[in-house]
Amino acid sequence: MSATPAYDDLVRHYQRLHRFDHLAAIVGWDQAANMPPKGNEARSAAMAELAGLTHRLRTDGALVRQIERAEQEPLDDLQRANLREIRRDWRNANALPESLVQARQHATSRCEHAWRTQRPANDWAGFLENFREVLRVGREEARLLSEQSGLGLYDALMDRYEPGMTCALVDRVFANLRQWLPGMIVRAVERQAGLPCIEPVGPFPVERQRALCEAAMRLLGFDFEAGRLDVSAHPFSGGVPEDVRLTTRYGADDFLTSLMGTIHETGHGRYEQNLPRALLGQPAGFARSMAIHESQSLSFEMQLGRHRGFVERLAPLVAAHLGPQPAFEPENLWRLLTRVRPGRIRVDADEVTYPAHVILRYEIERPLIEGDIEAEDIPALWNAKMQELLGVDTRGDYTDGPLQDVHWPEALFGYFPCYSLGAMYAAQWFATMRRSLPGMDASIGRGELAPVFGWLDTHIWQQGSRWPTDELARRASGEVLNPAHFKAHLEARYTPGG
Amino acid sequence: MSATPAYDDLVRHYQRLHRFDHLAAIVGWDQAANMPPKGNEARSAAMAELAGLTHRLRTDGALVRQIERAEQEPLDDLQRANLREIRRDWRNANALPESLVQARQHATSRCEHAWRTQRPANDWAGFLENFREVLRVGREEARLLSEQSGLGLYDALMDRYEPGMTCALVDRVFANLRQWLPGMIVRAVERQAGLPCIEPVGPFPVERQRALCEAAMRLLGFDFEAGRLDVSAHPFSGGVPEDVRLTTRYGADDFLTSLMGTIHETGHGRYEQNLPRALLGQPAGFARSMAIHESQSLSFEMQLGRHRGFVERLAPLVAAHLGPQPAFEPENLWRLLTRVRPGRIRVDADEVTYPAHVILRYEIERPLIEGDIEAEDIPALWNAKMQELLGVDTRGDYTDGPLQDVHWPEALFGYFPCYSLGAMYAAQWFATMRRSLPGMDASIGRGELAPVFGWLDTHIWQQGSRWPTDELARRASGEVLNPAHFKAHLEARYTPGG
Repeated sequence: MSATPAYDDLVRHYQRLHRFDHLAAIVGWDQAANMPPKGNEARSAAMAELAGLTHRLRTDGALVRQIERAEQEPLDDLQRANLREIRRDWRNANALPESLVQARQHATSRCEHAWRTQRPANDWAGFLENFREVLRVGREEARLLSEQSGLGLYDALMDRYEPGMTCALVDRVFANLRQWLPGMIVRAVERQAGLPCIEPVGPFPVERQRALCEAAMRLLGFDFEAGRLDVSAHPFSGGVPEDVRLTTRYGADDFLTSLMGTIHETGHGRYEQNLPRALLGQPAGFARSMAIHESQSLSFEMQLGRHRGFVERLAPLVAAHLGPQPAFEPENLWRLLTRVRPGRIRVDADEVTYPAHVILRYEIERPLIEGDIEAEDIPALWNAKMQELLGVDTRGDYTDGPLQDVHWPEALFGYFPCYSLGAMYAAQWFATMRRSLPGMDASIGRGELAPVFGWLDTHIWQQGSRWPTDELARRASGEVLNPAHFKAHLEARYTPGG
Repeated sequence: MSATPAYDDLVRHYQRLHRFDHLAAIVGWDQAANMPPKGNEARSAAMAELAGLTHRLRTDGALVRQIERAEQEPLDDLQRANLREIRRDWRNANALPESLVQARQHATSRCEHAWRTQRPANDWAGFLENFREVLRVGREEARLLSEQSGLGLYDALMDRYEPGMTCALVDRVFANLRQWLPGMIVRAVERQAGLPCIEPVGPFPVERQRALCEAAMRLLGFDFEAGRLDVSAHPFSGGVPEDVRLTTRYGADDFLTSLMGTIHETGHGRYEQNLPRALLGQPAGFARSMAIHESQSLSFEMQLGRHRGFVERLAPLVAAHLGPQPAFEPENLWRLLTRVRPGRIRVDADEVTYPAHVILRYEIERPLIEGDIEAEDIPALWNAKMQELLGVDTRGDYTDGPLQDVHWPEALFGYFPCYSLGAMYAAQWFATMRRSLPGMDASIGRGELAPVFGWLDTHIWQQGSRWPTDELARRASGEVLNPAHFKAHLEARYTPGG
């Protein structure tokens, strides 16, 4: 008989949950990538049925006693890590009553559905009518999660995406960014005014773009025996670690969006494909957190994808698939990929201006959740902060202002900071690699990417959720999150010589 | 309060089951059409978990009492039909113990997996080793189903696919076929010797074949807002009524296989897309049976797809997509599509020789299940019957002999007769249409297919499972299955004037 019967039962229970989550991931991907419109109603009902089932499995009354018993059993370190993550999963699933989960579902699906037409119509007033209820639900979630965890209101929301992340840390990091980022944006823009670049000339047939994206994925080591690339309106990385489903979208006159988007998703995909096989199906085997996930996609899209040496390898691939043109010369392609231009839209932002968008979201979301401002206050704050951080006048523009992202209609409060934390972790990983892999930058220029992937595999991918994020970072890089690496990275790439 | 509380509970239970079956259908389709190879192990585990769940829901101990209580409630005709189908679903799910279901799963998956390499290797001896266990399971299923239903052994197996079908009827129908079919085959072959046809000249690019197939589906009224066409190794019609997933496969030098296969699946697809919406999710709303399903695919592939008038509409579509060539002239295309050639392979057989393949399967399967012969006896019987029915010498050829179909490795005993019963029902539907739709054949030649689809919609599709098959046939055509229509159809098309 096993010396750890309660733990073994928990493992079986989570294996089962993982299998149902597998089904949810595949039908969810199918809904975005394949499903014809008339299938939506039946699909939504089927997915809701499954979500109800897995919620009941996650909140099974017997689990808490099993977790308590397992904690008394002689577990090794790996088992302890798994039990820690099981407890976390249990706590998150049980914090919110079924009625609130349903209220959230109703509020967000009504708000998101209306938002699809309100955004292009610049209809902030119409959006507000639904968004007030979404905000009410978000505040109630924050209250309950905070009561249960002892964390602050916004801390408790961030904790779902990035366990352990706090406003205290985010405040410190963003305050630092606020000091030097606006100046750096100005200097980078000024510097680039003297470095003109040639625009690519389309159209670029979709089939060729697709072939180019798949070639880039191969160059980046994506395993097509364990995943695919398809098309969806909003690109994402879905599926399961054993079968990763990436999506992109193609515009006839713009190949860079699909190409760099695909490179971004490939970073998410390789993380998933290389999670520790022995732990698959167990919470300790999953990706660590959303900031760490973004650190992988941004390692691919930014650290590697805009690396001078990598762009030298990418340029001939672009020319081979789309036909040669002056814009595809390596130096010009690199200039295109590193162009800094303050703009209104987060997802179109370059690497330097991007954090300003995230700071703005955080500085609006947090007082919203804490009750210091109301939904009506958003536009004035938005305009002021866009002016202050990016020098952009957004007055009267809701479409590409507070209506631009799906996060608010979907009540994903607390997520935005992960993007910038991910960019910072990515810079930290590459700084560490530079120390431990001498000649790495030259190797990348020669197309030798194996050392980079080997480092990520060893220090991030294979670690799964064995360690809390701080411990993962310490083991990988010798220190917890240190934004100085991000600043140094941007300086070296965008304002060399100061 | 409802006057039918037990019935209402049953309806809710089956609605829930239907939602889980929806998920199973989509991930099953995905497995065949999309899944990369390394995803298979996790996918199989996830699908088995779901299959276990739905089996438990189908065998829930409370159901039998609920069914009994519902039978005492004041139900209308539609509700009675639904309750009849619920009882049938319950009986089928409960007839076999979990241990046998698992034994079947193991035996068939081992046998099918090995068969994939044994078939090309002509390895009958190797196949036998696994097939003996598959046969044992099949016989045990027949015994239990027979005990529970009071049907004969093979009747009980057929009943799963075609409720109410019996050996007594199949014997009578096939004995009749045996009398006239071999002679008709000889006469048709002789007649066609004087009507040579021009072979199409490939290659035919896959993209153009795909566009041709989709154009044919549009011509046949397939709703692309509620379904798709994709690719799989073994073409099938999957998905759910609200979202029908058809598959085909493309060979570079042969466009007729993908085109006519797609037309076949489109028949299955339109049946599913037009099942009665008000009953969707309830057993009475599902397709009636496999023979009726095949009657729809064969109405499209054979009755319509090889109709002279339809081929006149199809020919310009082929030329438009693949470029004109002499083989695509309407008369020549029709000769290609109606060529009668006795051969070894069922799925490649023409409309006239096809029933011979089914008779052979039936005359081997039934004594196998009834214990009158053993697996070792198959090859000698196969050779004798191929010689007798089709004049083809198959000695020493297992690959395109008893190893050709997936049905035996998968223990699908009792299914084969549905193919020929379906062909007969299809002929019966078209004979009825000719009586009630004057000028129908001329209309088809003008591309007016709406009357045909209208008849099928009213008499078959919208009926779902409201009636047992005999009653469905009587309401649609004034009589139960009458094979004379099939004979008359083949005579008119293949041996006109005797």
